Amino acid sequence: MGAVITLTTDFGLADAYVAAVKGVILGINPGVTLVDISHAIRPQDIGQAAFVLGTAYESFPHGTVHVAVVDPGVGTGRRAVILKTPGGSFVAPDNGVLSYVIQRYSTGAPEGNALAARLGEGAEAVAITTARFWRTPVSATFHGRDIFAPVAAHLSLGVPPADFGKKIDTLAVLPLPRPRREADGSLVGQVIHVDSFGNIITNIRSADLPRATASLTVEVGNKVIRGLSRTYRDGGGLLALVGSSDRLEISLPEGDAAAFLRVGAGDGVIIRK
Amino acid sequence: MGAVITLTTDFGLADAYVAAVKGVILGINPGVTLVDISHAIRPQDIGQAAFVLGTAYESFPHGTVHVAVVDPGVGTGRRAVILKTPGGSFVAPDNGVLSYVIQRYSTGAPEGNALAARLGEGAEAVAITTARFWRTPVSATFHGRDIFAPVAAHLSLGVPPADFGKKIDTLAVLPLPRPRREADGSLVGQVIHVDSFGNIITNIRSADLPRATASLTVEVGNKVIRGLSRTYRDGGGLLALVGSSDRLEISLPEGDAAAFLRVGAGDGVIIRK
Amino acid sequence: MGAVITLTTDFGLADAYVAAVKGVILGINPGVTLVDISHAIRPQDIGQAAFVLGTAYESFPHGTVHVAVVDPGVGTGRRAVILKTPGGSFVAPDNGVLSYVIQRYSTGAPEGNALAARLGEGAEAVAITTARFWRTPVSATFHGRDIFAPVAAHLSLGVPPADFGKKIDTLAVLPLPRPRREADGSLVGQVIHVDSFGNIITNIRSADLPRATASLTVEVGNKVIRGLSRTYRDGGGLLALVGSSDRLEISLPEGDAAAFLRVGAGDGVIIRK
Repeated sequence: MGAVITLTTDFGLADAYVAAVKGVILGINPGVTLVDISHAIRPQDIGQAAFVLGTAYESFPHGTVHVAVVDPGVGTGRRAVILKTPGGSFVAPDNGVLSYVIQRYSTGAPEGNALAARLGEGAEAVAITTARFWRTPVSATFHGRDIFAPVAAHLSLGVPPADFGKKIDTLAVLPLPRPRREADGSLVGQVIHVDSFGNIITNIRSADLPRATASLTVEVGNKVIRGLSRTYRDGGGLLALVGSSDRLEISLPEGDAAAFLRVGAGDGVIIRK
Repeated sequence: MGAVITLTTDFGLADAYVAAVKGVILGINPGVTLVDISHAIRPQDIGQAAFVLGTAYESFPHGTVHVAVVDPGVGTGRRAVILKTPGGSFVAPDNGVLSYVIQRYSTGAPEGNALAARLGEGAEAVAITTARFWRTPVSATFHGRDIFAPVAAHLSLGVPPADFGKKIDTLAVLPLPRPRREADGSLVGQVIHVDSFGNIITNIRSADLPRATASLTVEVGNKVIRGLSRTYRDGGGLLALVGSSDRLEISLPEGDAAAFLRVGAGDGVIIRK
Repeated sequence: MGAVITLTTDFGLADAYVAAVKGVILGINPGVTLVDISHAIRPQDIGQAAFVLGTAYESFPHGTVHVAVVDPGVGTGRRAVILKTPGGSFVAPDNGVLSYVIQRYSTGAPEGNALAARLGEGAEAVAITTARFWRTPVSATFHGRDIFAPVAAHLSLGVPPADFGKKIDTLAVLPLPRPRREADGSLVGQVIHVDSFGNIITNIRSADLPRATASLTVEVGNKVIRGLSRTYRDGGGLLALVGSSDRLEISLPEGDAAAFLRVGAGDGVIIRK
């Protein structure tokens, strides 16, 4: 069947791990279209995988099945889950790798647990427990091949989520930092990603910015940028703009802003009017 | 529809940019076959992208749509274009990234402009302006996803180029260096690419070489190679041969010729009889 | 036709070599599904390619055609071959790159030649000589594009192996190291691969291990590990387990075991009860 399955992993491209996952999927659904989102996630960096998947899934057809396998807890007690939303279905360990997707469909954290999110209307999730869909024997070290791949393949053939296990109401999430408004009116955000061009991507959304973008300042590293640019070519030096994922970015035309500023994920960014 | 779309970009494989482009294409033409040519073009290196695309497109079926997005001028005044040739269709910014393709179909430069090429018979081009095929809203920073992807997808479904914008007669090209014949009969060429094996690829074509290949010499770095080899295994040391793209290459069996000679793109190569 | 063709090469992802191979295949079989196993094999490292292919092919549907092109002898006298087995078909230079596949179907080495294997029941091989399936002209340097790609594409369309050349009984193999039982009962194996997580993969299979896995010791680098773990998260430090390819692995949770131990392919590993 002509469904799409995407893959986001930390497997790298040097070994055969990605191919093994694809082989299993094609054995179950030969008509599927496979798309790599990224296999260059840093080993076991759940946060990076969550971000990268979060910026890609909305570009895909709504029937797409997204598989995310960054899974340091493979073989231990962590749950494997399916999350179905109007924007696509997701198959992953329940370790926060779906945080940006869940954020959109969550009604908040259950009481006393900031590392979980309760699902709201429009989204449903199951804990994967029905072994008859799995590859046998299941290894203790490669659930990507033995559980996630066959589950995603059957899901892409139209098997309903409920057939794979029991419904659940909450999923694990990472503590996603949100920008903070200070008493003096400034906004303190954080770098959440540096892309391969060296663009610095922050957790500040366009809606968070003051209306008068010409007069604002962006403080990052030990530099101050005045005003927002529209494209990567405006102005001669370091610039700030709202990028393609609707987030404030800092960029250096024909250079690497992150290397130039020595800034990385977790560093602060301050917006003043 | 079973068309093929290829992608050549400088997006790298760590971020989700390539996947976003593919997701948009699959949403419009679910039956398409997507092939990566390369996403490891150095950031904003239009010349490298032009070469890599130039060595690949002729291996593809003639109905293939080739998308090239190395686009430092995204969001500025640079045109986006479709070039249709008997050997395939191309969707790209009008910045020279199609230079090697255009070279084949051009009747020369318009007067006084060495950085443009007039299209001859068999090729046609349009400037992409018809917004109804685009993703909305169009970002100022990611036309790969918002313009090039949907245009390529619709083109692969059979929409004629004329529907995407107005016909144009000239396209931008890079100044591609050609080998120069000296008064003493020697031929002075240039290194245009170093591949991942360290093979040094020049702009000298097999037709440029003297007939008596056994007695010619190749000067490169500060070394002299006598005669041409047929395969990468002939002879024990540094060797010269006509490679798979019909260009003179210098290679070091079981080694990296470019590292050994400290030679890169732009360096000179001299052929003497 | 909806067949699968996989590719394992040392071409890297920066150049257009992989794309050229894919373009030729799609021109012959537009309905094929192409899957990359790896293109990050170290240049001309036949052993690494053999291992990577050996860990991937069994996950694919049995009708899959696997193309392996690590081919330092391209254009010289080395044979090009097709190997057909119940688990899939293989197209490759006859240089040992199929060693792990052949191992499974071989009845042993012909007398006096440790670098060849005689094929047993269930497997058949041909030397590729029938030029009418090839791309013309055939270059001396890129048989991946000019011979292996079109042969694999026609094979995926159902052309029988015998049409491509003459049947052969033996194929070239690398000397695959096997673990050695010492007089004192210890087992001496070898590191055969380090994966991108830094996991150290050995040639010791689960069946080679003593039954009482809790009391065994693994000596590697200058460390001693006691007992086997089940997952990558058991215990706090360096651990040993049977990995997803049924081989003994040494792993460092949230670290790189190979870098930590300064161990690589060829180094020894000793198991004592």
